[in-house]
Amino acid sequence: MNNNRIIELLEEQPRQYVSGEALSRELQISRTAIWKQIKKLESQGFEIEASRRLGYRLMSKPSQLTLPVLLKKLEGTALVRSIKLLDTVDSTQNVAQRLAEEGAPEGTLIIADHQTSGRGRHGRSWVSPAGKGVWMSLVLRPGIPLQFAPQLTLLAAVALCRALKSVTSLEIGIKWPNDLLIGGKKISGILLESTAEDERLRYVIAGIGVSVNLERGDYPPELLDVATSLLIESGGQIERSDVVAAFIREFEHLYALYQQEGFGPIRTLWEALSVTLHKLTRLYSPAGEFEGTPIGLDERGALLVKKSDGSIVPVFSAEMSAPKAGG
Amino acid sequence: MNNNRIIELLEEQPRQYVSGEALSRELQISRTAIWKQIKKLESQGFEIEASRRLGYRLMSKPSQLTLPVLLKKLEGTALVRSIKLLDTVDSTQNVAQRLAEEGAPEGTLIIADHQTSGRGRHGRSWVSPAGKGVWMSLVLRPGIPLQFAPQLTLLAAVALCRALKSVTSLEIGIKWPNDLLIGGKKISGILLESTAEDERLRYVIAGIGVSVNLERGDYPPELLDVATSLLIESGGQIERSDVVAAFIREFEHLYALYQQEGFGPIRTLWEALSVTLHKLTRLYSPAGEFEGTPIGLDERGALLVKKSDGSIVPVFSAEMSAPKAGG
Repeated sequence: MNNNRIIELLEEQPRQYVSGEALSRELQISRTAIWKQIKKLESQGFEIEASRRLGYRLMSKPSQLTLPVLLKKLEGTALVRSIKLLDTVDSTQNVAQRLAEEGAPEGTLIIADHQTSGRGRHGRSWVSPAGKGVWMSLVLRPGIPLQFAPQLTLLAAVALCRALKSVTSLEIGIKWPNDLLIGGKKISGILLESTAEDERLRYVIAGIGVSVNLERGDYPPELLDVATSLLIESGGQIERSDVVAAFIREFEHLYALYQQEGFGPIRTLWEALSVTLHKLTRLYSPAGEFEGTPIGLDERGALLVKKSDGSIVPVFSAEMSAPKAGG
Repeated sequence: MNNNRIIELLEEQPRQYVSGEALSRELQISRTAIWKQIKKLESQGFEIEASRRLGYRLMSKPSQLTLPVLLKKLEGTALVRSIKLLDTVDSTQNVAQRLAEEGAPEGTLIIADHQTSGRGRHGRSWVSPAGKGVWMSLVLRPGIPLQFAPQLTLLAAVALCRALKSVTSLEIGIKWPNDLLIGGKKISGILLESTAEDERLRYVIAGIGVSVNLERGDYPPELLDVATSLLIESGGQIERSDVVAAFIREFEHLYALYQQEGFGPIRTLWEALSVTLHKLTRLYSPAGEFEGTPIGLDERGALLVKKSDGSIVPVFSAEMSAPKAGG
């Protein structure tokens, strides 16, 4: 609290010194306490210049994701056991996969400032310019059978949806299985890559991409109708470390719930956040193309779709689009 | 047919010449036709020495796996689209996985004469000396959802069991999920490694290891109580290419059946070949250790186990052993 107030006061006079005495008077705390708060801000990634004679001045805010800031914001969580912050990578999924193959434990988190070939679903590429998004991959080793792996995809969507809502207060919904949409436009991508031996899941790499501070100019024009960012939607810069921390907190909570109580509670949360249910849609599945109305999830995580003849079919994998006119 | 008769005649006089005239008389075909048959045998891996003056003599039979022999034996099958025969590899799984990542299509088959670090279930190593076994990996790209992948493990066990029974006439049974046993000893290993993106299976590498012509001296002494080979059990050398071809034929048949009719028929076949069912056993699952009697598979491929209190639980993943005394 004091912390935020100090930043506000320093920001009122960019690159100008504010005396320790002035800060002390304003916050009604001792100059030693001010000094302690300044140290804390520095550990969070704020660059503050201190002069015994002139006071303090703010040189830069933590626009870069930094380890001290992240660790601070993850205090009290237990899931993440190590964080690797990288500048530029091909894809955080590739880095995490290599580490997982080498035995990296659950909770190994890879975050990159920039991806040169970020991977989306179905081998699609993903726009991930430097410094404007959260591109991260988390190694998981859940002790669950392979059959249940798709439930984790739905769990990750719920966790990210709740995280982004808490950070921005925007209206965000889940399109089956794991796209997050604001007003019909995509705000993030989730990709869970699973590796199994027979019926045993070896590891899962949860890849999360969030378009945080991308501006309209960052997108190819043809994507502006289907993609957006938290900045575009909320009108303000969002701290990327807040997005990372909020996701990890939500995920940790839901993952523990899932391990204890199974898929039931996740299913309920997913259904509540979904924008897919109760709307006629067209599905392209390996078994063929058909129209129907998704009405919920089954206990395996399959989407239950009611067809026009009244029958209800479980859909494990499909692409969706608007129904054909008159269809 | 003529072909087999020629080999028989040559084998009657090992390393001795049989004149073209004698063969021609015996088979009632021209000497040119004999020459053509000899060429065909050579293409199948038989080493035959020809002398214009003395005739033909058989130097060696195709104990090496050769591509012409394999292709001949796979005639009429459609699943295998390319075969890579390798001398020594770390593990055929690794080779197949690399190729699959590079886009190798379904039906890419990797066979090695020798593996330096063959992989078994649970990261165990696998004894795979040169020239004495079938060590192979098959790339599959089944259009099925991830949830169903464990069914392929059971399908592979049925295919291999049927193949080995047809080649040897030995009594072979399946221990859940996919170990093949002769008199309680392990004869082969199956390892299906699956890779998925969200709910979509990208590819499956079916790894098959069969101890074909291993002798007792090929095993570390501590393994002789738990492992055996087709040679030890049947008393005779088995052509490795027959094992490969028989497996591919059975697998192709069952895989097509599975794609058309689902898991039902596979489940029935698996249950009929199982040596696991209806015997009290001890299970070590991620959820804990318990005793029960496996009574069948459910429609997902989970093992149904009846506990002493009469309840029936589905087991997705577990290790099994004999029940504790008095347990």
